Amino acid sequence: MSWIESKKCSAAEAAEMIVDGDVLGVSGFTLAGYPKEIPTALADRAQRLHDSGVPFKITLFSGASTGDSCDGALARAEAVSFRMPYQSNPALRKAINAGTIKYIDAHLGKMGHLVRTGAVPCPTIAIVEVTAILPDGRVCLSTSGGNSVTYLEMAPRIILELNTRLGDACVGIHDVALPELPPHARPLPIYSAADRVGDTFVQVDINKVVAIVESSRYDEVTQFVEPDDVSRNIGERILDFIRFEESRGRLPKGLAYQSGVGKVANAVLSAMAADDRLQQIDLYTEVIQEAVLPLLKNGKLGVASGTALTLSESTQKEFVANSSEWKKHLIIRQQEVSNSPDVIRRVGVISMNTALEMDIFGNVNSSLVSGSAMMNGIGGSADFARNCMLGFFMTPSVAKNGAISSVVPYVSHVDHPDHDTMIFVTEQGLADLRGLAAEDRARLIIRNCVHPDFREPLTDFLEYSLKHAKGVHMPLALSRAFEMHEKFLETGKML
Amino acid sequence: MSWIESKKCSAAEAAEMIVDGDVLGVSGFTLAGYPKEIPTALADRAQRLHDSGVPFKITLFSGASTGDSCDGALARAEAVSFRMPYQSNPALRKAINAGTIKYIDAHLGKMGHLVRTGAVPCPTIAIVEVTAILPDGRVCLSTSGGNSVTYLEMAPRIILELNTRLGDACVGIHDVALPELPPHARPLPIYSAADRVGDTFVQVDINKVVAIVESSRYDEVTQFVEPDDVSRNIGERILDFIRFEESRGRLPKGLAYQSGVGKVANAVLSAMAADDRLQQIDLYTEVIQEAVLPLLKNGKLGVASGTALTLSESTQKEFVANSSEWKKHLIIRQQEVSNSPDVIRRVGVISMNTALEMDIFGNVNSSLVSGSAMMNGIGGSADFARNCMLGFFMTPSVAKNGAISSVVPYVSHVDHPDHDTMIFVTEQGLADLRGLAAEDRARLIIRNCVHPDFREPLTDFLEYSLKHAKGVHMPLALSRAFEMHEKFLETGKML
Repeated sequence: MSWIESKKCSAAEAAEMIVDGDVLGVSGFTLAGYPKEIPTALADRAQRLHDSGVPFKITLFSGASTGDSCDGALARAEAVSFRMPYQSNPALRKAINAGTIKYIDAHLGKMGHLVRTGAVPCPTIAIVEVTAILPDGRVCLSTSGGNSVTYLEMAPRIILELNTRLGDACVGIHDVALPELPPHARPLPIYSAADRVGDTFVQVDINKVVAIVESSRYDEVTQFVEPDDVSRNIGERILDFIRFEESRGRLPKGLAYQSGVGKVANAVLSAMAADDRLQQIDLYTEVIQEAVLPLLKNGKLGVASGTALTLSESTQKEFVANSSEWKKHLIIRQQEVSNSPDVIRRVGVISMNTALEMDIFGNVNSSLVSGSAMMNGIGGSADFARNCMLGFFMTPSVAKNGAISSVVPYVSHVDHPDHDTMIFVTEQGLADLRGLAAEDRARLIIRNCVHPDFREPLTDFLEYSLKHAKGVHMPLALSRAFEMHEKFLETGKML
Repeated sequence: MSWIESKKCSAAEAAEMIVDGDVLGVSGFTLAGYPKEIPTALADRAQRLHDSGVPFKITLFSGASTGDSCDGALARAEAVSFRMPYQSNPALRKAINAGTIKYIDAHLGKMGHLVRTGAVPCPTIAIVEVTAILPDGRVCLSTSGGNSVTYLEMAPRIILELNTRLGDACVGIHDVALPELPPHARPLPIYSAADRVGDTFVQVDINKVVAIVESSRYDEVTQFVEPDDVSRNIGERILDFIRFEESRGRLPKGLAYQSGVGKVANAVLSAMAADDRLQQIDLYTEVIQEAVLPLLKNGKLGVASGTALTLSESTQKEFVANSSEWKKHLIIRQQEVSNSPDVIRRVGVISMNTALEMDIFGNVNSSLVSGSAMMNGIGGSADFARNCMLGFFMTPSVAKNGAISSVVPYVSHVDHPDHDTMIFVTEQGLADLRGLAAEDRARLIIRNCVHPDFREPLTDFLEYSLKHAKGVHMPLALSRAFEMHEKFLETGKML
């Protein structure tokens, strides 16, 4: 019997190998390529232990968000004590905001580095979805790169979830490379989205593999929804502005695009696919999402490089059927590389990310509601925002049927200080903040981006601050900084 | 007559060549290597024009702060309409906070990139202090690198201020190299502080040089002050912690140090020089300040790489007398390189910067008093904080004789979000925030870093927030976030 056959067991048996206090380093990034059977079995085990009064909690490190069979199942079973660096699961989020799960929100490009340098605990067990295991111990990763190579290298024990749903569709799609750590670090020679610098398989230490669990479950990605009018409007404003910058000679040809996740980001990609004037483009991004496919299908996609291929179930099947063609245009990297500041700077990226909240001075909040409740996390937005050639933050101007303005006097949490932001876009318009001092930024944002209902209160705040703040440089009166947020917390409306 | 002789003129004549609305790109970084005679003459000219009712204002781009004969003189003459990316002059600061000068505070490592990519206006005239001009148009820069190469390349006209005070002391000290812009960017092969990758002179287009003004004035740097007890205490805590990390195997040998500017940073360098256990070290930093010299003199300095050599007048003279020996240990780069994220990541930097204000959740304010009044600017602190291997933010726990706590519920301005901070140090103690969720960070900071007078109000704020904030994840009650700041604005005391 080969070593592979000898390690095969059920998910329940594998879950038995995980003990209270273990630090799990799992594969998976934005609902792509995470283990499914083992976390679900682990949640069952935790539930049984809890029912009989035995404590059982683990720390969960991932690439980014995982699906409900991982984050959701484990959260509902109260099996997680600590989570990082990103999540998007409702049950997990609820526990984080109730204080029953500790959570650290980290730059996604930095998570692997934090583990490798000992800034956070080393995983005691790596649980990684793979699509092939070779006799010599090489494995083919699944639909995401994430931090899988780091966890496989650093954890003393490994459990592989061998997923057969994708056949050999993922073979050849990965570019497995990580930079060395200082003082031996050298740059990876990636100069454009298409550059490959590593192997396509990951070599695993066979002696560390304690279990192999078979699975055929799909990534739990919801069906793609066509953009609404507001999102489409934002997408078109961005494309118009890019054309304008190109016409002024301020944007060289040959840059790559990065697009965040969500319906507004999807709308931008959809607008690109529909735009006849747009020539072939490359993406150097984090998540290659379903909205990229129209670009691929109509011949406009050169290469999309990312760390996750996030597709709905039907599109995962389409990928399997067309993988040899699609793979010519797709590269999946480790997230330390997809989100690497130096590669982003070199390749030259036009970055587009969704803001949860913006303020009139140019600060952006990507993560916290009312300054305290975690939504998902900062993700890779800061990796791209600070290092891009041209950066957009976009959001509809209002939320909750107009009760909330997405543009506020001062964001309730700062993920991106004004030093790191360039262009704000809502369906109301676009504000190019580059080269503007604070008061000028404020007036432009109020005029161009704010919903008409909120222009007067924001102008009033600005005028008050110009009179009463300690310095006029940044006209922010602390006493009224959060007045719209406080009103919302009291009444459910910002006005 | 050579072209050099033919261009020589008085500072007043050169100032006549500058017109209302010009964008000046000047040399100079942290009071080192800025033009002195020309800005002073320009200020005189502006004053005369203003006296006769003629408007005259210029935009001033620099490396970083310049001395009083530049920033101060021009501010007092009301000759500046717009300034970026950093300053430290009292007259200029006053005008910025009064709103009569517009100011953008930018990452110092990014300023050159913003100019090169057209994100801010292109300088119309470069005014650069040089210490030698060769017949073929090559020039030797002075005590700083700054953005001089960018301004000399991009501005259509050039005025050189040829300073003779340094003789040939600066010849050979510079490493003149800039990375190409995307899509042609390649990494500069700098792998350690000592690596040189460029020329020592800058080639200037002779046809663009409109004037050469001779000068012998010294950089206006105040005399070095020996560290006080509080600063020494902080310095020793940092060194102790570094030793502790090394003993745990979490810090590899061979990393380089970065040290911010100011008395606390000086104290750290002084503590290093005095420490017998410390072996030879390299600095990969922004400003090579006077406190580096004891390390050089006692043989502990391998190489100090920076973008400025900021020395008091007497020490500038000492540099001239010993330059051949000192230059073996010193490299001055362009600030896009000294502060480059990718080089900082590769070299592996232990970063130490002064905070103006910290909060209990791990955010840092480096720039604004009471959220609105500019002090100096963010400087290069974010270039290093986000990309370092190990990062310290340090400050005395109180200011103004105890009226102000340096640790507050929530900083009045966020320059460094908690994602980018690692270790907080005051004379009260040190808090290692890595791997801690928000509430745990808050409790550790209150216990270890906060002055005893402020522990109770900060704990009270935290407990209130845990009960009343929308989410427990980040226990920040917006209604009380700035209560200590508001009290200070009303009464002059935070308690």
